[in-house]
Order: sequence, then structure tokens, then C-alpha cells
Amino acid sequence: MLHKNRIAVDQALARISDTEGQGSRTFTRVYADAARLAADTADAMGGLGLEQPPLSGMLVSVKDLFDIKGEVTLAGSRALMDSTPADQDAEVVRRLRCAGAAIIGKTNMTEFAFSGLGLNPHYGTPLNSWDRAGARIPGGSSSGAAISITDGMAQAAIGTDTGGSCRIPAALNGIVGMKPSAQSVPMAGAFPLSYSYDSIGPMAADVEMCARVYAVLCNGPYLLERIDPCSITLDIVGNYVLDGMDATVGRAYESALQRLSRAGVAVRELTLPVLDELPSLFTNGGLVAAEAYQRHRELLEAREAEYDPRVSSRIRRGAAISSADYIDLKQLRHRLMEEWFSQTRGGQMVLMPTVPVVAPKISDLNDDEAYQKANLLMLRNPTIANALNGCSVSIPCHDFGEAPVGLMLMGANGNDWRLLSIAQALEEILKACRSPH
Amino acid sequence: MLHKNRIAVDQALARISDTEGQGSRTFTRVYADAARLAADTADAMGGLGLEQPPLSGMLVSVKDLFDIKGEVTLAGSRALMDSTPADQDAEVVRRLRCAGAAIIGKTNMTEFAFSGLGLNPHYGTPLNSWDRAGARIPGGSSSGAAISITDGMAQAAIGTDTGGSCRIPAALNGIVGMKPSAQSVPMAGAFPLSYSYDSIGPMAADVEMCARVYAVLCNGPYLLERIDPCSITLDIVGNYVLDGMDATVGRAYESALQRLSRAGVAVRELTLPVLDELPSLFTNGGLVAAEAYQRHRELLEAREAEYDPRVSSRIRRGAAISSADYIDLKQLRHRLMEEWFSQTRGGQMVLMPTVPVVAPKISDLNDDEAYQKANLLMLRNPTIANALNGCSVSIPCHDFGEAPVGLMLMGANGNDWRLLSIAQALEEILKACRSPH
Repeated sequence: MLHKNRIAVDQALARISDTEGQGSRTFTRVYADAARLAADTADAMGGLGLEQPPLSGMLVSVKDLFDIKGEVTLAGSRALMDSTPADQDAEVVRRLRCAGAAIIGKTNMTEFAFSGLGLNPHYGTPLNSWDRAGARIPGGSSSGAAISITDGMAQAAIGTDTGGSCRIPAALNGIVGMKPSAQSVPMAGAFPLSYSYDSIGPMAADVEMCARVYAVLCNGPYLLERIDPCSITLDIVGNYVLDGMDATVGRAYESALQRLSRAGVAVRELTLPVLDELPSLFTNGGLVAAEAYQRHRELLEAREAEYDPRVSSRIRRGAAISSADYIDLKQLRHRLMEEWFSQTRGGQMVLMPTVPVVAPKISDLNDDEAYQKANLLMLRNPTIANALNGCSVSIPCHDFGEAPVGLMLMGANGNDWRLLSIAQALEEILKACRSPH
Repeated sequence: MLHKNRIAVDQALARISDTEGQGSRTFTRVYADAARLAADTADAMGGLGLEQPPLSGMLVSVKDLFDIKGEVTLAGSRALMDSTPADQDAEVVRRLRCAGAAIIGKTNMTEFAFSGLGLNPHYGTPLNSWDRAGARIPGGSSSGAAISITDGMAQAAIGTDTGGSCRIPAALNGIVGMKPSAQSVPMAGAFPLSYSYDSIGPMAADVEMCARVYAVLCNGPYLLERIDPCSITLDIVGNYVLDGMDATVGRAYESALQRLSRAGVAVRELTLPVLDELPSLFTNGGLVAAEAYQRHRELLEAREAEYDPRVSSRIRRGAAISSADYIDLKQLRHRLMEEWFSQTRGGQMVLMPTVPVVAPKISDLNDDEAYQKANLLMLRNPTIANALNGCSVSIPCHDFGEAPVGLMLMGANGNDWRLLSIAQALEEILKACRSPH
């Protein structure tokens, strides 16, 4: 009992090194000694009855794109291997360490975080936790982050989310993933994809754990509140976000809405014309491609052959975006943000399926066109929150034994704690239908 | 005495309509009725002994690029003539009216505010107030704004300053011109040149009048303070800003520094390596050309023949700037801002000549190369404050009877009132040498 944190770390390390498991594809680096030290410290503090920091001994994984002092940051790529090692930890890593977290390792990801599917040809692809024999995609780009949770190798994972990269793998693996308001968590020491859309967020088995980690990431107070479901009014979006929905997601989503209604949550249907304008924001890859190309321009010149061509070809689209196009996109984004705010009645929370389909099989994505189509479908709904600068969280809403399906809540910038508090109330209503972890 | 504001308006209107004077080249529109109404109101309030708003009855001119409800905003151009009339006043115009100002007219400017010389082939060029027979440039882009002050057609003028457009004409005409911290005065309803560099500022005969108007422009309190010269320490910049200085400016500048020292101001020489890096920020016209091109792209397609070719050709350079180049420039600017802050010991005020030469004759600029060279020389020093996002003011420092020479003070963003207070202390020391207005 006095060594509970140490025991948890050792169990996680054993799972990671199990050659039958997903460890080698889930982690790109493992910090056994540092994690044991943090766990031992937490155990010793517990033994002395000392007050402990907020994440004392908690097993946390961090995505491969965060700087760790003395290491080269790879971001799921081979092209960065000769880069200079980081001279300090990323700001979020520093905050996690101060909060007593046991950082167990760095998790695998889509190269440079630039796809929602989670495939990585360099370091392997961790398999989705559901239907493992079917070899389905984990979702991305924070693929290893999700599997580190589902496979008991971490209690919480830190991902990044530029177009759904925390929420897509959360939805496809039946866990919780959050995209906070971008400015609330500093990007210092995180390899960027898009200055406009990047955000850093937690993933975990439930909302409460995400909230505990988010408080540390944003270096703020813990403000999760119990909310009476009967006081909640949510808008469900009728246009854009339901296109292409498969039967499994459709059933789970409908069923979730009925349960929420029966529990007293007021649900209203809403049409948001602004969403039908969103695709024009993604012309030629939009702000993400422009900003990624700026960051990668030199590296592409030097080492393009080492990139996943599905990643480099999409980054290269940014070369066709002129500065005038870029400023047009920034202004269009600003206008759409204002329209979103007005059409959602001042930024009220809205509800939609996180992704409209269950995780496809990896073998079905060998063809580039199928890959591209699946990628756009995965990103479509989550990207709304990045494009419109909001905050968002995905929680599971499927029944026990069914394929994981995510229910996504989205709110206006700055409403992160309200978002999490409502998400916890919904989770409470919906979790009765699922097996406990 | 009861009609003093009305008398002042009528005198100004008489000067504007004097065919021997500069009125027709200084103003593009005159608001005789509205100015008389504001003056009459101020006089009546005075007669009743009522407390009056801060600029009650003050004669103010506004640059041709500010929206006035019901009018097409031309920005010194002919290409906008068929545009939709403004459906409301620019925010600064609204603030001036609320403050009781008598807005006397719109002042001529360099087309689209894109040059520091002040030449306008469409509406004529108001002549510099010094050596009028010599037909020298007024400086720009707020050319008419300066002449409206020097020629007694307004007590204060509202200009914009993207690279010196308030301070250059102030320096060349012996008045005061201010470029505030950009975000302190809203750009709503002002025709933009560059989203990154634009700012709106006052021009007037002295610092106090500028300060009174600035308080209204920024909708804040009036915080001008008397400062003991012996408590002031200023850094004078030794590199970059003195290159190409002519003998007149050199003499006036040296003499001003000596007077300040004798009055107790501590002056230290400083080298700022960051300044020698600035030219790389202006490659292909830099952020200004990129942002201007974005704004003008459609209009150039439709009506380029109506542009001053010296303006359109410089806007067109922005077409060659890619989104990656643009983001590079934004990041470089950010780095240089940090270096400026550290090299000036945390943003201490620095002193330099506003422009290194006296106003050239218009006839000497007929050649495009001479125009280009003179323009770059005029803009070089003032642009520092725009590029590095600071605040800055130009005050006169020449002797009575000499060509006007400006002394420029520059501080870090947000220090506008400290800047004005120090400027007033310096003005007090230097003005003994000039004739009273």
C-alpha cells in the first residue's frame, strides 16, 4: 500500500515492454527511471503524510512532439533525427513535473501531427483498442496517447489538437479527449503544426481526470463543478456535421440524445449556416497548410525523401498560398467566428458526433484516395472548434460491447471549465450504459 | 467673446477658401455647416456657463481616409470613387464629435497613405509651410493634416502613421506629430494600409494639444504630467539613424542635444544592433506591401490605371510575398521587438532626428529614382516605431528662421503618456529658440 504508485509504474512498464502488446508502437521513448523516481517520491510523501502536489505519482504520457531536455524532439518523423537536442523541457512538461506527475514516456503520433487517422510508416501504428484483431486505425494524430490510456500504460495522456488530434483518437477508442481554448495552454517547446489552430489538451478515461490534468496544463485553479442536468440546455446541430454518418454512430448518437433528454437535459435543434461556409476556409489546405509549409520549408528542401509522402504532399499545398490569400483566410476566419458566436446565441454549447463513422480498418486505407477521404471525414467535425477558436471535448456515448462512438461538446473560447462541467454531467448520464473500466 | 469658436471657424473657412492659399490642395472636403454648428454649440454652452466636453469647439481636421457617414471614403485616390458611401462615422470621428470638436474638413494625403513624401497627382500637393516659394514637399502621407495646422485652418489634425505619416510632415513643417501605440486607438472606419503597422495619431502646434486630442482618440483619461528635466534620462542612438544626415539637420540635432544636457536631461549614447537588422524586415516591401496588396488586389485588377503608378507599383510588390514569407516576416518582427526591448534596457526612451534631411523641393523628385531614394530616407527613422510596435512623437528642434527639423522620441508599446510627458519637458527646453506661433 505504501508503494502503490511504484507498483502502478512497474505494471505500466511491464505492459509497455510486453511484446504481445502495443507498447512498441505506442511509445517512441520510455522513461522508466524518471517515472519510478516520481512514483517513489509520491509514495514516500504519502508515507510521511505530507500534502502532495495535484498530480503526485500520476502516470502521464506525453506526445512525441514535446521537448524533453537533452533529447531530440522527433514529432513522429525521421527527418528531424539530426536536430539539436532540446535545451529545456516544454512548458507543459515542466508543469507536469512540478505537479508530481510520473512521465512514463513519449507517445507515437501521425508524423508532424498532420492527419486524423494515426498511421505512422516510420514507427508503426498502434492498433485501435476495439476489435484489435480487425487492425483498425487508432485515430490521430495523438494515436499513441489514446492507446497508452486504453492499454493501461498511463492514467492520462497529453496530446495536441490542431483539427481534432485529441478528440478523434478519444472517440475511436472510447475515452475522453479535450481541446482547450488554444491560448490557455502555452505551446512553448511543442513542435508546431499551425500557429492559428494548435492547442494542447489532455486525454484520459473520464472527464474528471482530464479536468485534473487540464488545471495543471493551464496553470490555473481546478474549477470542475457538479451541474444539475435539468439546468442544462444544449443545441444539437442539424446541418453539416451529420453528413456521411454510419449506422453505428447514428444509433449511438440518437440513443445518447434520448438518454440525455430523459435525464432532464433540454436539447434544441439548431441549423448553423456558418458551418456550410467552413470549407472555403480550407482551400488549398488553408491556414494549417500555409503555416505548416512555413515551418517545414527548409526541412522539406533538405530531407523530403524521409517524410511520409502522405504528409509532405499535404504540407506542400501551403506553398501555393500567397500572403494575400493567407490574410484573406485570417479575415474569413474572423468573420466566421463572429457568425458562429451570433448563430449559437452568444456561444452556447452545441452537441454533435465527434466523428461520423467508426474506426476503419487500416487495410482499407492503402489507397491514397481512400486515405484522403477517410481523413477529411474524421477531421470535419472536430476541426470546427479549431477553426472557430473554441473549446471542445469528446466523451464516449456507445453501449457496452459496441464500437466506440464519441459525443462532442463545443463551446466558445474561454468556457473550458463550463465545458468540462457539462461534459461530466453528460458522462454521468451516459456511462450507466457502458462497462466500467 | 461669446462667439469666439464661431469666429475661429469662420476665419479658418476664409483661409481654406482663399485662392492664394493652400486650402484647395490641403482639404478634399470642407464641412462648413457642421463645423459652425459645433462652434455655435460650444459658444452657447460657454454662454450658459455649462461644463463642456474636452474638445468643445476645437477646430479639427481629419485625414481623407476616415469614414464620414454618407460619404464615399477616397483615401486620396480616384479609384474608390464608385464605392459605397460609409454607413457610419469612423470610430475616431465619432469620439471627436462626442468630445465637441468642430470637424472642419478632410485633409489631402498621399494616395492610400503609401509614401512619406506627400505628393498627390490627383488632388494636388499642398506646399511645405517653410520656403513656400521653393515649392518643397509637405511630407506625408498626412500632408494636408500638417498644412491645415501651419496655415491656421485647424487647431489639431488627425492623421494615420504606418511608417511615419504623422511624424514626417510634422518634422518637415515644424509642428508636433504623434504615433501612439497602435492598439490604443481603434482603426474601425479608417481605410487600412497595413494591419500590422497602422496607427492613428494627432498632429498639432504643441505637445499639450496633441495630448488633449490623444486622450479623446484613445477614449481614456488625460494623463500629461509635468516632469523635471533633471529626472529624465534618454538614450541617443549612434548607429543607423544618423546615416545620410544633412548639415542643417545635423546642426539642429547637435544643438538640441546640448540644450537638453544644459537643462539637466541625462543623455547617453547607445548602439542598437537590432536596427541594422531592420532592413531584412522590409524585403519586397515587407508586411506593409503584403497587407496592402491583399487589401488592393481586387481594386488593382479593376482600376489600376487610376492609381498613381508610384503607389500601385509599390503595392504590387506584395504579390511576390508568399504566405510562408509573410509568416517569416511576422516571426522576424517579433524577434526584433524582443531584441529592441532588451537592447534599450527594457524599452527605455530613445532620441533621434525624425528625418535626416530637410524637405526637398518637389521639382527634385520628378525622377522615379530620386523619388524612391527620398521616400526611403524619410521613412527610415520613423518606421522603426511601427516595425517594433512602439510609440513615438516628433517635436520641432530648429532655431527661429531655420528650416524645420524634428526631434523624435520613441518608447516601448503602452508608454504613450510617459512619452508625451517627456516630450513636453523637452519642448519646453527647446521652444525658447523658436518664434512663437
